[in-house]
Amino acid sequence: MSKNRKFYLEDIPLDEAWRRFIAAMESSGLWKALPGEDLPLEEALGRVTAVPVWATLSSPGYHASAMDGYAVRSMDTLGATETAPKRLRIGPDRQAEYVDTGDPLPSWADAIIQIEHTQHIDEEADEFIEIQASVAPWTAVRPMGEDMVATELVLPANRLLKPVDLGALAGCGHATVSVRRRPRVAVIPTGTELVTVEQAAQEGLKSGDIIEYNSLVLSSQVRQWGGEPTRYPIVVDDYERIRETVREAAAIHDLVLVNAGSSAGSEDFTSSIVEELGTLLVHGVAIRPGHPVVLGTVTDRKTPIIGVPGYPVSCALTGEIFVEPLLSHWLGVPSKEKPKLKATISRKLLSPMGEDEWVRVTVGRVGERTVAAPLSRGAGVITSLVRADGIVRIPRFSEGVEAGREVNVELYRDPSDIDRTIVHIGSHDLCLDMLSQYLADAGRLFSSANAGSLGGLMALRRGDAHLAASHLLDPATGEYNISYVKQYLPNIPVVLMTFLHREQGLIIAPGNPRGIQGLSDLVRDDVRYVNRQRGAGTRVLLDYHLNKLGIEPERVKGYRREEYTHLAVAVAVQSGAADCGLGIASAAHALQLDFLPFEKERYDLVIPRIYYESDLLQPLLDLIHGPVLRRVVNELPGYDTTSMGTIVV
Amino acid sequence: MSKNRKFYLEDIPLDEAWRRFIAAMESSGLWKALPGEDLPLEEALGRVTAVPVWATLSSPGYHASAMDGYAVRSMDTLGATETAPKRLRIGPDRQAEYVDTGDPLPSWADAIIQIEHTQHIDEEADEFIEIQASVAPWTAVRPMGEDMVATELVLPANRLLKPVDLGALAGCGHATVSVRRRPRVAVIPTGTELVTVEQAAQEGLKSGDIIEYNSLVLSSQVRQWGGEPTRYPIVVDDYERIRETVREAAAIHDLVLVNAGSSAGSEDFTSSIVEELGTLLVHGVAIRPGHPVVLGTVTDRKTPIIGVPGYPVSCALTGEIFVEPLLSHWLGVPSKEKPKLKATISRKLLSPMGEDEWVRVTVGRVGERTVAAPLSRGAGVITSLVRADGIVRIPRFSEGVEAGREVNVELYRDPSDIDRTIVHIGSHDLCLDMLSQYLADAGRLFSSANAGSLGGLMALRRGDAHLAASHLLDPATGEYNISYVKQYLPNIPVVLMTFLHREQGLIIAPGNPRGIQGLSDLVRDDVRYVNRQRGAGTRVLLDYHLNKLGIEPERVKGYRREEYTHLAVAVAVQSGAADCGLGIASAAHALQLDFLPFEKERYDLVIPRIYYESDLLQPLLDLIHGPVLRRVVNELPGYDTTSMGTIVV
Repeated sequence: MSKNRKFYLEDIPLDEAWRRFIAAMESSGLWKALPGEDLPLEEALGRVTAVPVWATLSSPGYHASAMDGYAVRSMDTLGATETAPKRLRIGPDRQAEYVDTGDPLPSWADAIIQIEHTQHIDEEADEFIEIQASVAPWTAVRPMGEDMVATELVLPANRLLKPVDLGALAGCGHATVSVRRRPRVAVIPTGTELVTVEQAAQEGLKSGDIIEYNSLVLSSQVRQWGGEPTRYPIVVDDYERIRETVREAAAIHDLVLVNAGSSAGSEDFTSSIVEELGTLLVHGVAIRPGHPVVLGTVTDRKTPIIGVPGYPVSCALTGEIFVEPLLSHWLGVPSKEKPKLKATISRKLLSPMGEDEWVRVTVGRVGERTVAAPLSRGAGVITSLVRADGIVRIPRFSEGVEAGREVNVELYRDPSDIDRTIVHIGSHDLCLDMLSQYLADAGRLFSSANAGSLGGLMALRRGDAHLAASHLLDPATGEYNISYVKQYLPNIPVVLMTFLHREQGLIIAPGNPRGIQGLSDLVRDDVRYVNRQRGAGTRVLLDYHLNKLGIEPERVKGYRREEYTHLAVAVAVQSGAADCGLGIASAAHALQLDFLPFEKERYDLVIPRIYYESDLLQPLLDLIHGPVLRRVVNELPGYDTTSMGTIVV
Repeated sequence: MSKNRKFYLEDIPLDEAWRRFIAAMESSGLWKALPGEDLPLEEALGRVTAVPVWATLSSPGYHASAMDGYAVRSMDTLGATETAPKRLRIGPDRQAEYVDTGDPLPSWADAIIQIEHTQHIDEEADEFIEIQASVAPWTAVRPMGEDMVATELVLPANRLLKPVDLGALAGCGHATVSVRRRPRVAVIPTGTELVTVEQAAQEGLKSGDIIEYNSLVLSSQVRQWGGEPTRYPIVVDDYERIRETVREAAAIHDLVLVNAGSSAGSEDFTSSIVEELGTLLVHGVAIRPGHPVVLGTVTDRKTPIIGVPGYPVSCALTGEIFVEPLLSHWLGVPSKEKPKLKATISRKLLSPMGEDEWVRVTVGRVGERTVAAPLSRGAGVITSLVRADGIVRIPRFSEGVEAGREVNVELYRDPSDIDRTIVHIGSHDLCLDMLSQYLADAGRLFSSANAGSLGGLMALRRGDAHLAASHLLDPATGEYNISYVKQYLPNIPVVLMTFLHREQGLIIAPGNPRGIQGLSDLVRDDVRYVNRQRGAGTRVLLDYHLNKLGIEPERVKGYRREEYTHLAVAVAVQSGAADCGLGIASAAHALQLDFLPFEKERYDLVIPRIYYESDLLQPLLDLIHGPVLRRVVNELPGYDTTSMGTIVV
């Protein structure tokens, strides 16, 4: 570990960074589509034509019968009517000759009579057909070249080959096609703290170990975008080793990606290596996440190199922002555009001036509104990208977006997925994950945001969600949810339906080393509590009981440390950051912690009637009323499904 | 060839056909998602999870520093201000310890101070840092499990794996993932007339030979939709051989596709084989193209089988209509939906009652309008699918659509492609294909419909196109285009710009066997002419000269046989269907025919001013004014580019 570091990155606007990068590649002749390679058609699906393709054969290659029927001379059919049918003699070079669909038109004939429009005179002798109408010349004939004429343009260059394109190429005589070579991309992960997932799965992790998966994400992106990745083994933080790996990679690849080591931290080698091996063009782009990007070219080949930031979200977005357009350009196709959608942002987004920010959002169609809900903005939270339905870009001259404003979302999903998504905002419970599993089988997607019970009711009031799970205890009545729904949703007809009952209690370390017996121990000096956020039902429950016991919240050490889920509370206990926290039995059980139960609470679903009666939610209601979900929930510790599906009000 | 055939197919509505097919698979337990197979993450991109995936490790697996900086006890920092900074002693188990981003938080610490917010007191001694502000507990710390907590749901089942999903799987400790097995699909081409494209490319084609490419299209479709195709060699029309191939294929595949042999023709074996080997469910669906589809199940395994019609367009659409939804269901994902677009249909579409019809269209954005132009409806014209931007479905209880009505288009392309498409309707010339090549390099797509010169002007009047190529001779003045533009586009400001001059003349067989010397020979009894369609500039040119020569059109044999392109006229001559036709030199040259030139005509582009000045057309104008296009056009026979780019009016 060293403190010899520079503190400052540049802050180059994205378009300026791009301009420098492209200009450097242009000057070395690398900013152009890659050359072609000949491939058999069977291997060419999804590849891009490198040159235009002209037909070498005509299709059909001869005048072909378009029907099963009889080839005739049209002039022989003149005058045939229902009342005065005509007879034509069968056999080659006579007046009628049987042909199957696709057979050549005999040279003496100029039309086909469909077999359905003919009668055999004498089935045995098979000598004549009778027709009751005349045919015009070229009837039911596919003229030579109807589909393609030799010499004609069949496919342009820069065409992404689809199945029917391959058919057309074969049909006009091409057994191979010249497609652009796949761009070769080296992906080099660096970092002494990194271990492979195979190691981790076999040997477990030590504190400080980080599973290396950025190179997996980058190489999968490269593959998805039509490139050919080389995923290098992890290189430890050693300047010379990294430099030599970069030098070797640059010699045989079109692009080098060096992951991590690109922040302004003590292990920042990439920018120095680029300076030593070539030209450093950019170090620090005014984007977020992804700020510490390095752009440059290295070695005599002037191979472009990108220093990709180490945080997983920054890494994946650097791929989308910098690598994808490069690969598309080299393949000769336009950069992939995501489907776009206008949506209402569900809460205020602050964004720093001076940086383009990419915000991950979930998107749901709630009634007439399309709502985008921001996800975690932590650059280390890869699941925020996994769960994201799309991205909202906040331009660098903006300070953010007010709640309720319209934003443009670039979708990661098919827009039709949005229409089959049930949006839940509210209290979280593991059983909602179970529910989402079964919904997937019924063709529904389930988007769930943990906003706490009260947050869920507020979301319903704003029209941001289809339903909210809630377990809000009314201290005055000891009753759950009813009074809150009346207070917060006075004008929205809702159905309040019980989902389940669940055990709440204190989650404590295994063996209960602090000897915690109940809430009254929370005032002890040696007991650190971990709390849930304001508006969470569990927080309301705590406050209710503290009040009953006459304990001032200020006396509870850790009362101000807030987590957003039961599992996060359990993790705080597991890791020793806290000694106990209030939460549900299943969270304690999941992390093999001890549990001191003290209340069985009712956990309801609040569903506006308009969605309760919608097709969208029908599969959810079916599951709640069916036996399967009930069974799997009952198998979990701390749950009671006796009232599952009971309408409260 | 045999005439033992049944004439009648069923006419089962598509939804009823589907119901029967699904019901049969349900009853044999085959209508469900396929089981999983474990794959290393590197091979799982684009595959579908077979089961939900729960985190096995937390990420981060420990409380991690989110910054480069110093780990501290937050209580030690209390009271530090700019005016009263505090000193903290450096070193493990003291008051401050240096950590890199990602390093574990030391067990005695509970916060990180970013290095930028610290000062070294004595750079040599390295004993103290000075801070000017206090930090709250957990500042700049990524708590254990911030991203994923062990036991938490990470990915649902039925998830199509994206690059970031693979990252998340690795991050929570999974080195492999259970993904649905790829559905195995046998593709069996049948037909004695079929040859492979490799044979055709090496040995050429005999009359009656047809290049087999439907199996290439079907197997590419299967691969594209996530299945694993087995492409069988061509099986000749032999009932027993086909039956045995089907039987073998059914034993080791999830689905069998038998191509061709499914019409009601004499080689119709599929339905009989299905009857013999299992259950024939459907023979003939009320769709067009694709009517003679066979659906059934075969052998004791009840393997589903589809008899796919032989015409290439019918074949490819049968894949889209029947195979894709099956594969998607087996993979546990929703059937792929194409992007949808509303458009105005450019001309009247008649459609038979009683059949769902799939009409291929090109789509262009012309000014404020989105225009869908129907392509050839011939089931043998694969290029109609290659060129199609989308499909319009005409339901079976409709007789068609009037011109100008709004239709729903299901797009084969990315909607953004439509915005970069220049729509040309009008006269065709090979040089427009050249132009489209260079436009592709400039990021523009060029959609060109051959409607003849007059058809192009009418299209501009309706607002269906951005430009129209035209070579309409005014018999009164001998001038090209000007009077027609005035007459047909009186209210649209247009730019009339010369593209090129080109040689028109009679296209005749090599060696001129009929001794044709000029238009006056067209009245001879032994000379068969092939004409262009009404409204084509070449037809106008013919009529002008016939009139000058005092020849009545009725006296020209073949005057009523109309083709839509120069190449089609040349093909008619090449194939012996006609002895001569009027057309351009390059068409005669392409097919190595003789050419009797008699007029150099001006070929202009008519461009409404509003598009002439648009960004969309700028690359086209750049090409016309640049040297490259001029050079390649000059290399073709019969062209003169002296006036390329000259504005006429």
